[in-house]
Amino acid sequence: MTEQGGISLFDAIYTMRAIRRFKPDPVPDALLRQVIEAAGQAPSGGNRQPWRWVVIRSAEGKQRVSELVKQANAKAAEARAAGQDRRPAPTPAAAPGADFAESLASVPVIVIACAQAPVSQGPWSVGPFGQTYPGVENLLLAARGVGLGGCITTGFRWMAAEFKEWLGLPDDVEPTCLIPLGYPLGKDGERHGRKTRRPIEELTHEERWGGAISF
Amino acid sequence: MTEQGGISLFDAIYTMRAIRRFKPDPVPDALLRQVIEAAGQAPSGGNRQPWRWVVIRSAEGKQRVSELVKQANAKAAEARAAGQDRRPAPTPAAAPGADFAESLASVPVIVIACAQAPVSQGPWSVGPFGQTYPGVENLLLAARGVGLGGCITTGFRWMAAEFKEWLGLPDDVEPTCLIPLGYPLGKDGERHGRKTRRPIEELTHEERWGGAISF
Repeated sequence: MTEQGGISLFDAIYTMRAIRRFKPDPVPDALLRQVIEAAGQAPSGGNRQPWRWVVIRSAEGKQRVSELVKQANAKAAEARAAGQDRRPAPTPAAAPGADFAESLASVPVIVIACAQAPVSQGPWSVGPFGQTYPGVENLLLAARGVGLGGCITTGFRWMAAEFKEWLGLPDDVEPTCLIPLGYPLGKDGERHGRKTRRPIEELTHEERWGGAISF
Repeated sequence: MTEQGGISLFDAIYTMRAIRRFKPDPVPDALLRQVIEAAGQAPSGGNRQPWRWVVIRSAEGKQRVSELVKQANAKAAEARAAGQDRRPAPTPAAAPGADFAESLASVPVIVIACAQAPVSQGPWSVGPFGQTYPGVENLLLAARGVGLGGCITTGFRWMAAEFKEWLGLPDDVEPTCLIPLGYPLGKDGERHGRKTRRPIEELTHEERWGGAISF
């Protein structure tokens, strides 16, 4: 469905922030359908549409997600303690917070993006993340557009095998991110708005690596 | 820069098509900057902004890209002939056409999206495609928004090592897609508009794989 009017493209792109804390209000079916349908408008190789979406809305399902993500976080902490995860610490604004896993038990909706692998792989293949993340970006922009919010989380992948078994995913289907969705907590909490980015000239090169761009 | 007004988010999402044939008109610097800046508004883990963009606008550079992509296509054809690439054939509308590699020598702009690898890898890592494709989707939507067009191509990756050497990419930087950009050929050729997608209900499951969704 094409919406006439509504938020402008550039307003959505420039104000869509990662939202991890939500009002308890439920997400209307029509809005959930709208954001997932928008995701499915993404491009894909040969228009094969290799994305699949698993929507968790039951109390039992969300409770199980919360438990699995807590276990994933524990695994991640072990790896950090063992020196296996040497990522720079995220900026405070980007850190998910210790209570995020707990909060998943009560977020309005959880969407798990999945990629179904092509028949064969090769240098042209963009892998499960490349297959799904254009659609995930559409989904998050559409959420912004209808007043909802969400974010890409991948920490659950420390327990990817357990997630796959629990969700009953076929062998060729890989979960690529877990997206909580709901109404942003709002004025006194998380909300959409301007965000911090490096000047694009620092990340862009003319003709070859290191070449300064002027535009 | 936030644009006031302009195309609506949902119009952009629903009408942004893959554009591979372009008018010869050059892309104004300001519009190129606008689409790359929009790309950089994408989310990333810890807001690390791991994308880099190499812009090819010189005649010599585009000629070299065209040659390398022709060589990549030849490699792909060899692999198919040897039975190593068993992909289903793309739909005719999605097939890039035999003249695409040739046309790259004269497209207005070529953008090569690159991902800079994080310090360490782990289950949380989304890899080079996951790092860049949310931004690539923003870039393509923004192009649609300002009247331009482009598409994601990955065939060049059959010659990824040669591209990396030619572009002078550091070892930890991986090119993830090659995007031609320009004004769509228009009325008698390629243009933006409605596109063909499967009903989203076929690609969405409730609670677990196979669960029918109602929304």
